[in-house]
Amino acid sequence: MAHRVVNFNAGPATLPLTVLQKVQEEFLDYHGEGMSIIEMSHRSKAFDALVVETEALVREIVGFSADYQTLFLQGGATAQFAAVPLNLSVAGKTAEYIDSGSWASKAVKEAEKLGKPYRVPASSKADAYKYIPTDFVIGKDAAYLHITSNNTIYGTQWQSFPGTGNVPLVADMSSDFYCKRFDPNKFALIYAGAQKNAGPSGVTMVIIRKDLLERSPNNIPTIMNYQIFAKENSLYNTPSTFGIYVVNLVMKWIKEQGGIDKVEKMNRDKAKLLYDTLDSSDFYKPHARKDSRSLMNITWRLGSEDLEKKFIAEATAQKFIGLKGHRSVGGIRASVYNAMTLKGVQQLVDFMKDFEKKNG
Amino acid sequence: MAHRVVNFNAGPATLPLTVLQKVQEEFLDYHGEGMSIIEMSHRSKAFDALVVETEALVREIVGFSADYQTLFLQGGATAQFAAVPLNLSVAGKTAEYIDSGSWASKAVKEAEKLGKPYRVPASSKADAYKYIPTDFVIGKDAAYLHITSNNTIYGTQWQSFPGTGNVPLVADMSSDFYCKRFDPNKFALIYAGAQKNAGPSGVTMVIIRKDLLERSPNNIPTIMNYQIFAKENSLYNTPSTFGIYVVNLVMKWIKEQGGIDKVEKMNRDKAKLLYDTLDSSDFYKPHARKDSRSLMNITWRLGSEDLEKKFIAEATAQKFIGLKGHRSVGGIRASVYNAMTLKGVQQLVDFMKDFEKKNG
Repeated sequence: MAHRVVNFNAGPATLPLTVLQKVQEEFLDYHGEGMSIIEMSHRSKAFDALVVETEALVREIVGFSADYQTLFLQGGATAQFAAVPLNLSVAGKTAEYIDSGSWASKAVKEAEKLGKPYRVPASSKADAYKYIPTDFVIGKDAAYLHITSNNTIYGTQWQSFPGTGNVPLVADMSSDFYCKRFDPNKFALIYAGAQKNAGPSGVTMVIIRKDLLERSPNNIPTIMNYQIFAKENSLYNTPSTFGIYVVNLVMKWIKEQGGIDKVEKMNRDKAKLLYDTLDSSDFYKPHARKDSRSLMNITWRLGSEDLEKKFIAEATAQKFIGLKGHRSVGGIRASVYNAMTLKGVQQLVDFMKDFEKKNG
Repeated sequence: MAHRVVNFNAGPATLPLTVLQKVQEEFLDYHGEGMSIIEMSHRSKAFDALVVETEALVREIVGFSADYQTLFLQGGATAQFAAVPLNLSVAGKTAEYIDSGSWASKAVKEAEKLGKPYRVPASSKADAYKYIPTDFVIGKDAAYLHITSNNTIYGTQWQSFPGTGNVPLVADMSSDFYCKRFDPNKFALIYAGAQKNAGPSGVTMVIIRKDLLERSPNNIPTIMNYQIFAKENSLYNTPSTFGIYVVNLVMKWIKEQGGIDKVEKMNRDKAKLLYDTLDSSDFYKPHARKDSRSLMNITWRLGSEDLEKKFIAEATAQKFIGLKGHRSVGGIRASVYNAMTLKGVQQLVDFMKDFEKKNG
């Protein structure tokens, strides 16, 4: 049995052990093909079948219909910050962005950099991004509304998604991709870097409602053109073949768990355990407002920075890894993505209670 | 021992078995970190050390000086077709592109799509891209000269690189990256998708002379901005961590072989064996002109398409994989990248001689 820590990394992050074992087991010979998955042509029958299966699996987990298509792209959310305005802008219309955190703000800055008209109807920046802004009005004729469904750094998450009428709703779901059930029909496009809930870094899922593909203009970088990649089933050029392969295994793992509802229940149980611990005394000071708490990234401070350093040092010594908060919030962040087990969270909570007893 | 075919795929392609075994061996626990390489934070000390080491290793193999920097990007050559003109264009100057094949031509089309002024001083298209055009004159004040050092589809390769004076020389080396020694000081920038000679698909090396970084304008997609990625040592956002890791192992493998000169000798031995076989009778008809032959992709036709189909079917039955030529040339293509062994080529040659005897 390999030495394994309890991995609370914000991303790349812990993945299901059975998935890792499967990758390891078949790494020299993928399905009897006599070569590694990373040596296989992306034009081979076996790989093509893998892409077709994974495209459908990704949609199936939360019930995206055949009106949507999954694209497997590269470059993470950062590439999508550019690809969304480049593909979906409409002459004479303004795009709207809700500013709920650093990454949301980076998406705005990229639209600005590329010279696309935008508006930010709501921001929680002035309040240290402690909550998700939900009180806003968007233009009825906006090009699209862009939201960030979960804010990794601050530990906030949209609890329900806004209705937008005819305005296409676009969401960066990189840090809470498939952590709970949601209504896919509300969305025109969702995107997610795989490296938190779906696989390794280097592959990005873009699930797009096909009517939006008409918007892609010709004079943008081909690598970012949704229409071209949709037409070629993500194989316009060589994709991250390894990335798609691992996403395939993780989607199957979700199904093996009993599907998205079971995964959501596990996530709610894990988050409750941690939030209850944070709420049970004044020793730990949660960052996110209660009505905006994330199931995926749980953030808190301690009484002093020295105490926080001590907490992290002792946690690390006990093999709890990745708990240091992002520098813009400080303190502690526990990322408890789908693959984090309830047992792992229970061990952390036991440690936290013990730490509080000794230092409270 | 895993079942392994003899893999002549054009890319993704065969990789050194010892590299694959190493990946497999440490896949659940990278260097005692207690997690898989794909679960590690790109901000961790261990991963940062890996990037720093790999950046230097890539330069070291062929002797790029500290005037250059390796960037690990995503999106393959297709992304660089856009990134090069977006970063390196200069107002009032024209970029020059040598059209030596389909991919070279795609690079030209991308510059055109993005509205950048360009000129094509030479093309071998009219002659089915059978040779590398070497007889051309470029403007003394060109923004840059772009060449494709090896043409995967046609099996042609630059035998020596042009002097360009003060004009920056840019090369797409995706399909012959580090197959032989060359003078790195001739180049302003080289780029290569890893999936042929350096690792899995999904990671792209860009080796850029640092003075060129000044050219990157602000109003281009951040994911393509060389200056930003150079400043952040490729960690502006999450890179393909797995990709960089495998590139690291492959660079070490080159050193273990005795370095680039030994790898070049192996490649010349392999190519000679195959070309001598092609030249020894009229049964096989090489596509590329002798003065432009590639060490990496060796292309030929047989007397009829039926005979070619038979050749491929019988080769496949004997576990020689990936020999079907690209549709634009037809016939046969054997890709004999660095990791292809002399033994593998010898086995193919034995098969070819036997096939000729039976069908000649």
